[in-house]
Amino acid sequence: MKLGVIGLGTVGEGVLKILAAEGSRLEAMFGEKIEVVRVCDIEEKSFSFGEYNFTDNYRKILEDGEIDTVVELIGGVGVALEVAREVLGSGRNLVSANKHLLALHGKELFELAEKNRVKFYFEAAVGGGIPVLTPLAEGLFPNRFERIRGVLNGTCNYMLSKMEEGMTYGEALRDAQERGYAEADPTFDVAGIDTGHKISVLSYLAWGELVDFSSISITGIDKLTVEDVARARSEGKRYKLLGEAFKEGEDLVVRVAPQLVDTDELLYSVGGVYNAVEVEGSYTGKTIFYGEGAGMDATASAVVSDIYKVIAG
Amino acid sequence: MKLGVIGLGTVGEGVLKILAAEGSRLEAMFGEKIEVVRVCDIEEKSFSFGEYNFTDNYRKILEDGEIDTVVELIGGVGVALEVAREVLGSGRNLVSANKHLLALHGKELFELAEKNRVKFYFEAAVGGGIPVLTPLAEGLFPNRFERIRGVLNGTCNYMLSKMEEGMTYGEALRDAQERGYAEADPTFDVAGIDTGHKISVLSYLAWGELVDFSSISITGIDKLTVEDVARARSEGKRYKLLGEAFKEGEDLVVRVAPQLVDTDELLYSVGGVYNAVEVEGSYTGKTIFYGEGAGMDATASAVVSDIYKVIAG
Repeated sequence: MKLGVIGLGTVGEGVLKILAAEGSRLEAMFGEKIEVVRVCDIEEKSFSFGEYNFTDNYRKILEDGEIDTVVELIGGVGVALEVAREVLGSGRNLVSANKHLLALHGKELFELAEKNRVKFYFEAAVGGGIPVLTPLAEGLFPNRFERIRGVLNGTCNYMLSKMEEGMTYGEALRDAQERGYAEADPTFDVAGIDTGHKISVLSYLAWGELVDFSSISITGIDKLTVEDVARARSEGKRYKLLGEAFKEGEDLVVRVAPQLVDTDELLYSVGGVYNAVEVEGSYTGKTIFYGEGAGMDATASAVVSDIYKVIAG
Repeated sequence: MKLGVIGLGTVGEGVLKILAAEGSRLEAMFGEKIEVVRVCDIEEKSFSFGEYNFTDNYRKILEDGEIDTVVELIGGVGVALEVAREVLGSGRNLVSANKHLLALHGKELFELAEKNRVKFYFEAAVGGGIPVLTPLAEGLFPNRFERIRGVLNGTCNYMLSKMEEGMTYGEALRDAQERGYAEADPTFDVAGIDTGHKISVLSYLAWGELVDFSSISITGIDKLTVEDVARARSEGKRYKLLGEAFKEGEDLVVRVAPQLVDTDELLYSVGGVYNAVEVEGSYTGKTIFYGEGAGMDATASAVVSDIYKVIAG
């Protein structure tokens, strides 16, 4: 496999690091070597674990006829959309962790991949290092799905824990920013948009339907006060920002809101930057997938598993 | 696909039921029809949801040249071993839920499947309806695995809950037997052997090594008293029968024993007939798979997903 990687932030660096560290073992397992032909970012980067053919012009990767598989880790829906369209449209495989892109343009991209008979995998887009999209689509499919609920955003989950300890919303946000868990502009996380993207992708895999993103009712944690959180605690409950999807008659309802969760639910115990996805199916009842929802290594591991899935599949 | 099903107990009936109920939807998804050519059990069975070509002689399925895939749901290592050897040896695919067979004869059968280039899937052997073997092998493989722990036996887990409520071991066992959770001879469950089979299979998938079953240290719940359980509760802890596997230097250690679990661990909250498997990896940290570990529908759903995996893979 001849790989191009676009976007060398935390996850991109993690992918190169895992490929460098585990490459020979995985080559033996899969019977194929992965050659990283070219890597791209807007600013030049070098890494202690390997030497790479660097470019700051992503078009060089798109126009490199040798590359058969592209890993898109840019995020957003600008250059990432151009990259995805061009990679899939030209008959090459795409691996992405971009839930934003999937939630807004998934339909077009899934059709493009099918039409061109190429592989398009995105396990890392939801739940970071937790294998959840593939088991949902390839393991639980005999079910009629009844409901999916998930703690899908580590930043919000961390802030809610801090508010339970008595911090105000503003203090919790500053704390999360100081630790690097929240971005300078935290809107996508705290307003629930990131959770909305992720529950969209999950519900697409469960019901085969990608809802119009603007139809999703989204409430973030930015309207919760430390008093709300304290009142929940005094009742033995806890607020969790949940992405939720279920069928109401023929309609697929997808929504995001902080919800009170009881101590006897496993989602109650999902702390800090952990994520969990609870899937209710007609045959399997409740199945829960839990693990590290973010972080360099965990998310990069999911991207690497998708890269090898391109080989295996 | 031309299917033969051997063993029409709870899970076998569930598999036929799901194939009958979901067949046309899944045929559209996978582009292939599954025809149940023949079914077998030692005593004649009929089902309200469909008519089947029944035989009480499993050799009729083995000798039916039309059948390309056999589902073995007999259990044990007698006829099931003969069936598995003959199916794989004659170039047909095998789907099984038989952890006992895998733990004792897995090595021979995996080699046979590889040599004959046929598919051998067994997701239902561990964790019932929880997709855990496939995500471990096909999702988490970039990791170096550090440890696996699991609550893998619903019967023991149910009995331990009853002992927490004050029942003696004998009362909890009778209660479980009356509800159909424990068999007349409960040894395999309560002595930890079933858990041993399951942790063996998990560790094979994580480390590629099937330990000699006789080398596994196994302690069941049958030596626990209601006083032990009460003492644990008074310390805010709880006994769980855990299957555990980890590397100690070059050695793979696999063992089964009741262990004290703290309230802050998710395994603490795994109640009744639920199962959970916790996988610790070098990149993904702790990942937990939780769900219904037994029961007709949940386990049958995992078998059905394996049947379609034969088609898809």
